[in-house]
Amino acid sequence: MSKSSNKNWRDELHEIIYEADTPAGKLFDIILLIAILASIALVMLESIKSFDEKYHDFLNISEWVITILFTVEYIARIVTVKKPIKYITSFYGVIDLLSTLPKYLSLIFAGTHALVALRALRLLRVFRVLKLARYLGASNHLASAIKASRAKISVFLFAVLIAATIFGTIMYLVEGEEHGFENIPKSIYWCIVTLTTVGFGDIAPVTPLGQFIASVIMILGYGIIAVPTGIVSAEYTKQAGQAKTPLTNQPHRNIHLNSQSCANCLANDHKDNAEYCHKCGHNLHIN
Amino acid sequence: MSKSSNKNWRDELHEIIYEADTPAGKLFDIILLIAILASIALVMLESIKSFDEKYHDFLNISEWVITILFTVEYIARIVTVKKPIKYITSFYGVIDLLSTLPKYLSLIFAGTHALVALRALRLLRVFRVLKLARYLGASNHLASAIKASRAKISVFLFAVLIAATIFGTIMYLVEGEEHGFENIPKSIYWCIVTLTTVGFGDIAPVTPLGQFIASVIMILGYGIIAVPTGIVSAEYTKQAGQAKTPLTNQPHRNIHLNSQSCANCLANDHKDNAEYCHKCGHNLHIN
Amino acid sequence: MSKSSNKNWRDELHEIIYEADTPAGKLFDIILLIAILASIALVMLESIKSFDEKYHDFLNISEWVITILFTVEYIARIVTVKKPIKYITSFYGVIDLLSTLPKYLSLIFAGTHALVALRALRLLRVFRVLKLARYLGASNHLASAIKASRAKISVFLFAVLIAATIFGTIMYLVEGEEHGFENIPKSIYWCIVTLTTVGFGDIAPVTPLGQFIASVIMILGYGIIAVPTGIVSAEYTKQAGQAKTPLTNQPHRNIHLNSQSCANCLANDHKDNAEYCHKCGHNLHIN
Amino acid sequence: MSKSSNKNWRDELHEIIYEADTPAGKLFDIILLIAILASIALVMLESIKSFDEKYHDFLNISEWVITILFTVEYIARIVTVKKPIKYITSFYGVIDLLSTLPKYLSLIFAGTHALVALRALRLLRVFRVLKLARYLGASNHLASAIKASRAKISVFLFAVLIAATIFGTIMYLVEGEEHGFENIPKSIYWCIVTLTTVGFGDIAPVTPLGQFIASVIMILGYGIIAVPTGIVSAEYTKQAGQAKTPLTNQPHRNIHLNSQSCANCLANDHKDNAEYCHKCGHNLHIN
Repeated sequence: MSKSSNKNWRDELHEIIYEADTPAGKLFDIILLIAILASIALVMLESIKSFDEKYHDFLNISEWVITILFTVEYIARIVTVKKPIKYITSFYGVIDLLSTLPKYLSLIFAGTHALVALRALRLLRVFRVLKLARYLGASNHLASAIKASRAKISVFLFAVLIAATIFGTIMYLVEGEEHGFENIPKSIYWCIVTLTTVGFGDIAPVTPLGQFIASVIMILGYGIIAVPTGIVSAEYTKQAGQAKTPLTNQPHRNIHLNSQSCANCLANDHKDNAEYCHKCGHNLHIN
Repeated sequence: MSKSSNKNWRDELHEIIYEADTPAGKLFDIILLIAILASIALVMLESIKSFDEKYHDFLNISEWVITILFTVEYIARIVTVKKPIKYITSFYGVIDLLSTLPKYLSLIFAGTHALVALRALRLLRVFRVLKLARYLGASNHLASAIKASRAKISVFLFAVLIAATIFGTIMYLVEGEEHGFENIPKSIYWCIVTLTTVGFGDIAPVTPLGQFIASVIMILGYGIIAVPTGIVSAEYTKQAGQAKTPLTNQPHRNIHLNSQSCANCLANDHKDNAEYCHKCGHNLHIN
Repeated sequence: MSKSSNKNWRDELHEIIYEADTPAGKLFDIILLIAILASIALVMLESIKSFDEKYHDFLNISEWVITILFTVEYIARIVTVKKPIKYITSFYGVIDLLSTLPKYLSLIFAGTHALVALRALRLLRVFRVLKLARYLGASNHLASAIKASRAKISVFLFAVLIAATIFGTIMYLVEGEEHGFENIPKSIYWCIVTLTTVGFGDIAPVTPLGQFIASVIMILGYGIIAVPTGIVSAEYTKQAGQAKTPLTNQPHRNIHLNSQSCANCLANDHKDNAEYCHKCGHNLHIN
Repeated sequence: MSKSSNKNWRDELHEIIYEADTPAGKLFDIILLIAILASIALVMLESIKSFDEKYHDFLNISEWVITILFTVEYIARIVTVKKPIKYITSFYGVIDLLSTLPKYLSLIFAGTHALVALRALRLLRVFRVLKLARYLGASNHLASAIKASRAKISVFLFAVLIAATIFGTIMYLVEGEEHGFENIPKSIYWCIVTLTTVGFGDIAPVTPLGQFIASVIMILGYGIIAVPTGIVSAEYTKQAGQAKTPLTNQPHRNIHLNSQSCANCLANDHKDNAEYCHKCGHNLHIN
């Protein structure tokens, strides 16, 4: 796939970082995956008080190791891409930056006593989990079905919110503060809990009339859950149907897409025999 | 679209209020939207005791501003429509009236000490949220799918209620008053909570037999939720299929509908090049 | 529809009771509907202690009125049918008998002090709600879709039960008696509560491992609810598709079925111009 | 179906154990089914302390009877199969072994005081419930629909986990330890409870901001449940469509499959008139 003769170190690094069809590229991907999962585990363990007290130093050092690793990854990604600005401002660019910052910023804020800010900063690291989204990759079919039905689902959710507002106010009037329906926002919260069939039970109607209205809300929620399901189901069936080529009416051929990435515009999903980027026309071999 | 030469102020006002394709019309829509949302926010904030005590005067004045604004809107809508009676008796006409009344009525009842009535009156303002329904607009496709499956869903809900009645009575017999199943209506309430998979947990079976019957009810509820979903899904798929023109079997053309509204009968969704109302034949240009 | 010339009182009564296309038949149906609903209301009100103490006599007399009414109805149905045995042993025949018995039996048991039996007997009256099923009538399309997917849903429910047994035992081992998982049956009950996404919260995992396994169970339950929905949805779509006539590929004509009932075999849904019962060949006019 | 003339006792035993179309084979199946159900009932009853104390000896003896029965079954299955290794390493082979071991191992560990290990060992018996899976049999259609949509559902569940991680951390920050969100893993557990609409209520948000975020999570969970349902529904509809023969476009003929099992490779579902195994070519009559 790649002619290493006419490639310098930057091109080789690009192939390792952005692509997964060389052994080095695969190794890089696996190391990164482990680092991400380890990083999330660290954030979780740190939040468990008893564990944090015992192994504070171990957690701190591990965090520094991972932060440095992600920093190196971030710099390497900038260096090997033709258009760094495009990468830096992209979704993954922002996530990659966010993955490195918290630990450095904690040094700066260490002197101050803004504990809440520090805590929020530490927890920011959990957004590293979004780096995993890179591995989700090829679920375009699914994403497009959701995108296509997004408008309809929004209308539906909007209707749910209107219903929650009205029923929430009615329940506030019927049950009142003495039964936990302290104010309208809390009543609406309870109404959403009920309409979505979650039902925590932290607040529950006590008066017969309140229980009757709650029954109506529940049956309504039970009935309307069918609507978004029906929409996505129909949309997805349609999408699956359109994936056939119009003339022969056969399912679309499963073209093998490799994991190459254009050094110029970061576009993915090039065909195995592609010579030029399908998005910007950049020669894929020259890099 | 509109020939302003042969238009007086009433026609111009009609275009601003009922249509959204002129800058003034768009501005009117945005102001109204903000007023509605602010109004709902006021009702909510007023219900929070600590907030109401602090900012009572601010809330009162804001409420008067919004009430007057909605009153002006209501009068303007009546004045600019050809058939005011039709508007006043329409769904939106009633909602628009309800949006203005509570504050005025509170003045009348202020002398009396009918506190509960006053409270209910104040909360009536929450129905202003239904004014938002105007902005939902074009979801006709969705609405018709629900309408088409309404009869079947009614049968289904009726069956759910019969099941809830029988199982509720059985649970009342099995668990009894000492475990929270105080009487049959409350038992039926619990049964609906369980069948719809809400599960508050305010009442829960304690005896082994009661827990066994509850398991049966839950699995039943889990199984029958598939029914309305299947109905809407099938109905929606059918609707999407019928949207194709019969002969060419191609998806229906996306005709651009503008936001004009007939001054005579309030019908919406006129085509861009429409000269006459598609419902009552009124000339759209003359107004 | 009916030639009253060659009809005696039995035939006329049959038409009133079993059919709804004469004014008398409609009136009979409405009276019966009100009686059923009133009867259910009585059972419910009787179970509310404070109400029962106040209005005991009123409830008792009303119950006698309704019992006598249902007894008259039951006898009338037997008298007017050609094959009474078939009616008596049919689903509705048993329900109609059960609707009358409790009050009479309560007289017999009144002397004894079998209070629990008496209470169960009184509550038996709630099965009168099944008399309402007669009015559901024409939902054959829906019923056949459920019947067609019944086998597959059974397999699915069986799989759910196997999963609940295994996960229930694991949770019993992990959480133990001190956290409410007292024995395996109770653990399985909790597991069904969780798998079906009901989630009462009367029992909830406390240990981290227990909460982890609970998360797995919940995601499993969330994932597998898609299965019965998919089955019913697909089955229903297929049913709707097969409802077209094979050659012309047009939707099936909406043949008007009247509410006549065969006096011989009780079959319903005869076409308006039907001369003979489509099930047993009995002449519908002669009765 | 089977020529018993050229069959020795092993062949006859094979037919009894692996097939269900002779009276002896049916009887064997029914006895096994009862033994499995009785065995599960024993495990359950043993876990109920009060019952175990009363009937300890009865439970112990019954357990030995069932263990010996399953041991005999296990040995018989090995003896009558041509390739025992294949059976032993198969799913059912492992389950059949696991069904016999616990009681024997309890003898070995009886001397030691490893009570927890002993308890876990006893509960291992519950996996006997998986022996029931043999009777589920012919639901291949359903299984293949789930298998086909497995990849898409995995992507979906992965996305749910990412959302749970991020929202869990946010809720930990917002609500904090004083409201039950003690650490991030527990917060994520709560988030899964909410996203899946289970809603135990053992932990529930108390602050207004926390309740607002909870509302967002609930509506999200309510909305995304549509996705897996839509996938399975579409996949299942497709599967049902492909089950038609391509040319005649008629539903696939319902070929009667008998319960014969190949003595060589254990393959099932041979056609009634099959002479040779459709998987390995072994002569079905010779065994």
